[in-house]
Amino acid sequence: MPYFDAASSAPLHPIARQALLAALDEGWADPARLYREGRRARLLLDAARETTAELVGCRPDELVFTPSGTRAVHDGIAGALKARRRAGRHLVVSSVEHSAVLHSAEAHGAAGGDRAAGSDGAVAGDAGGDVTYVPVDRGGRVAPGAYAAALRADTALACLQSANHEVGTEQPVAEAAEECRAAGVPLLVDAAQSLGWGPVAGPWSLLAASAHKWGGPPGVGLLAVRKGTRFAPAGPADEREAGRAPGFENIPAIVATAASLRAVRAEAAAEGARLRALVDRIRARVPETVPDVEVVGDPERRLPHLVTFSCLYVDGEALLHALDRAGFSVSSGSSCTSSTLTPSHVLGAMGVLSEGNVRVSLPPGTSADEVEGFLRALPDAVAGVRAELGAPARGAAEEAPAAGETVVDALGRRCPVPVIELAKVFDRVPVGGTVLVLSDDEAARLDIPAWCEMRGQEYVGEEPAAGGGTGYRVRRTS
Amino acid sequence: MPYFDAASSAPLHPIARQALLAALDEGWADPARLYREGRRARLLLDAARETTAELVGCRPDELVFTPSGTRAVHDGIAGALKARRRAGRHLVVSSVEHSAVLHSAEAHGAAGGDRAAGSDGAVAGDAGGDVTYVPVDRGGRVAPGAYAAALRADTALACLQSANHEVGTEQPVAEAAEECRAAGVPLLVDAAQSLGWGPVAGPWSLLAASAHKWGGPPGVGLLAVRKGTRFAPAGPADEREAGRAPGFENIPAIVATAASLRAVRAEAAAEGARLRALVDRIRARVPETVPDVEVVGDPERRLPHLVTFSCLYVDGEALLHALDRAGFSVSSGSSCTSSTLTPSHVLGAMGVLSEGNVRVSLPPGTSADEVEGFLRALPDAVAGVRAELGAPARGAAEEAPAAGETVVDALGRRCPVPVIELAKVFDRVPVGGTVLVLSDDEAARLDIPAWCEMRGQEYVGEEPAAGGGTGYRVRRTS
Repeated sequence: MPYFDAASSAPLHPIARQALLAALDEGWADPARLYREGRRARLLLDAARETTAELVGCRPDELVFTPSGTRAVHDGIAGALKARRRAGRHLVVSSVEHSAVLHSAEAHGAAGGDRAAGSDGAVAGDAGGDVTYVPVDRGGRVAPGAYAAALRADTALACLQSANHEVGTEQPVAEAAEECRAAGVPLLVDAAQSLGWGPVAGPWSLLAASAHKWGGPPGVGLLAVRKGTRFAPAGPADEREAGRAPGFENIPAIVATAASLRAVRAEAAAEGARLRALVDRIRARVPETVPDVEVVGDPERRLPHLVTFSCLYVDGEALLHALDRAGFSVSSGSSCTSSTLTPSHVLGAMGVLSEGNVRVSLPPGTSADEVEGFLRALPDAVAGVRAELGAPARGAAEEAPAAGETVVDALGRRCPVPVIELAKVFDRVPVGGTVLVLSDDEAARLDIPAWCEMRGQEYVGEEPAAGGGTGYRVRRTS
Repeated sequence: MPYFDAASSAPLHPIARQALLAALDEGWADPARLYREGRRARLLLDAARETTAELVGCRPDELVFTPSGTRAVHDGIAGALKARRRAGRHLVVSSVEHSAVLHSAEAHGAAGGDRAAGSDGAVAGDAGGDVTYVPVDRGGRVAPGAYAAALRADTALACLQSANHEVGTEQPVAEAAEECRAAGVPLLVDAAQSLGWGPVAGPWSLLAASAHKWGGPPGVGLLAVRKGTRFAPAGPADEREAGRAPGFENIPAIVATAASLRAVRAEAAAEGARLRALVDRIRARVPETVPDVEVVGDPERRLPHLVTFSCLYVDGEALLHALDRAGFSVSSGSSCTSSTLTPSHVLGAMGVLSEGNVRVSLPPGTSADEVEGFLRALPDAVAGVRAELGAPARGAAEEAPAAGETVVDALGRRCPVPVIELAKVFDRVPVGGTVLVLSDDEAARLDIPAWCEMRGQEYVGEEPAAGGGTGYRVRRTS
């Protein structure tokens, strides 16, 4: 039963399991204590820090272990912003960061590190900060110089992921770090998706990562703060982990973190090449075997194990279920999942199709046979979902061309229905004619222009529509 | 090799180990995902929450898992204070809370939930809150009615531990919770030391605990927020754990938490009675076999497995080392440890001797033989440390009584030297005469009055002394 969602969480590496077990027996005591059990725990913690720091590319005293990657990001950003309040309150992030970074940015923007006031009657603590979201290209990558251009005299911190979690695109982190250094602004790198594949290059100031993403245990994040970087931990004081990560140290998991990072790094070059070839195969085959599909993300500058594609006229959640029934565990950044009704901010920032989105991220050890099995199963899974939704086959329209503008009322219908209804009428529209799609689904704002791009048709623009929705106008050009 | 520091961290319970191992294989995936591995993880998480909530005495949807007890306390206090900002900024805590609570109180007092400005140039975010520290009696217990008396119209939150971590004294939590409820103020109970022994009684509003304290795994804390309690999570948003505990769920450890809590609860009545008898034995024997010792903490209303005593004329750190060499791992709240130069705030609030402090906390399964071995080893260990420090034997002074006031200059000398020097001269002082001890060690402020109490002599008071220290005056009354 192939599991293809390593980017969410990788199965525990055998070395991690082994190290965790050993450290459960040796590392359960308080490392601050003077007796033998405490000293033993301290030795394990120190050794794990040495190993991990070397693999991160920092000094042991620059690295602390947090309870998760999310906490590393939250606490790293809060600590860096707090330490540089005198420099200013401006924060720069890319528009395709992980939600951990974006939620930190929202909190900073709303109330200076405090979440916005809610219906509970809480009020903001002080004036909000200012956030700049750096755009990306259609491949999901920030442009060279984009960070330099975004920095201001009052910029306290910039954040950039090493590689995107939804589409696998690698960011120009080393270049951005140089740009930030030149401006005297610290750069925090969210390396959650890439650290198992290698260290992050460039003069970054802070780095966050998460062990379970590379096959380490849950419950451990990394936060590196390079010497010379101002840092003032937010929240109540705590003496552990250099005052930067409150709470009793989870030493068994930390030991497993170090051991597993060393193990995956030892395998990274060979396994990366092997998985890259499998992903290349997916990138090539999916558009050949599935109609109306868009493979997204930078085709070259990308993580070796991850590929994302979107399927027109497909409900992403239904497709995930179909693939699950076929035995394949994959994920989605699509708008069409139960957990959220808004489209993926990553796909939105890239301006690509979000509907029917599938992310395949191969864990180490994935076999070619498993990938071939997926490629065999996918076309039927997509076709099944499309059939259920009544998606159009191309050229199926038989009615006479309508005169004037064709209006498609998709109000109250969820993604991907608005695009399906658009496609259904489009063949009846004369070249030069327009279609106005009325929709109140947020995904339509992304997916109708993306459909035009894929079909080579003109997206004219949007206008408010009667009934509370938005009208999206498309002109047939061919 | 007996380990007697369960109150710091208990060795992993065999059931916890077993559950952790099983859940490593089944619970590593993201429980928010729709595929089978995610559904399996979700089932494990839900089941663990059900089990744990029942043992805590709350509903499953009132309980979230945090990365540690410290984080449960920090985030619980911050969230409760934030939600009740309109009610006011006043916080009530007992003076013997764990540092996790006190550091939260300090952060609130300094800067409204933000740590005080440091040398890094950071500035406070907004006006500080107001904190009331409720005193305790000589047994370490808050008085009935003390919380009711401390509450004000602008009190946002009150916090009280279920039992003290240093001396084992149980607090009147149910009574305090009633007092708070009557005033419409939520009470947060830090149940870290007691939850393995039983649920916390009374109408508390929030409860925090830590799994590794009862033999569960490291990396898991509990935060319960009862329905009807206002709560506004501080910090960046995160959708997991009801928005109250950011970060990827550590499901294997959470499963082990539930299983181990159930296991220790099943053994709690019998094991508690057995350990209580062993602690009674220590409480009785130590004063018989070790001269100049004070057993501290409430003798009856206490945790079953924990006893603390302080030894006059003893350097606590040296005593811990001596006991470690003799094969016994015990802890200390003493001022005389390497990690801090200030006396234990708990012993200070109780007004008892802090020097030569030893905390014995027996893990489940401790045998009577191990305790007898400790009782045999202790007198020599204490005598050895005293001999090295040149502590006085009673009645050893041979010189003639000095006329007028005797001045002991202990400036620059660390605890327990000032008390040793006092004792050395005291037998030469005539009844009615006084000794002025000059000291710049903070512990002297606690230990000289405590010495007077133990010796039945009069502590007159303190005054500033030349040379930057303080003069502590003692009158010989017998």
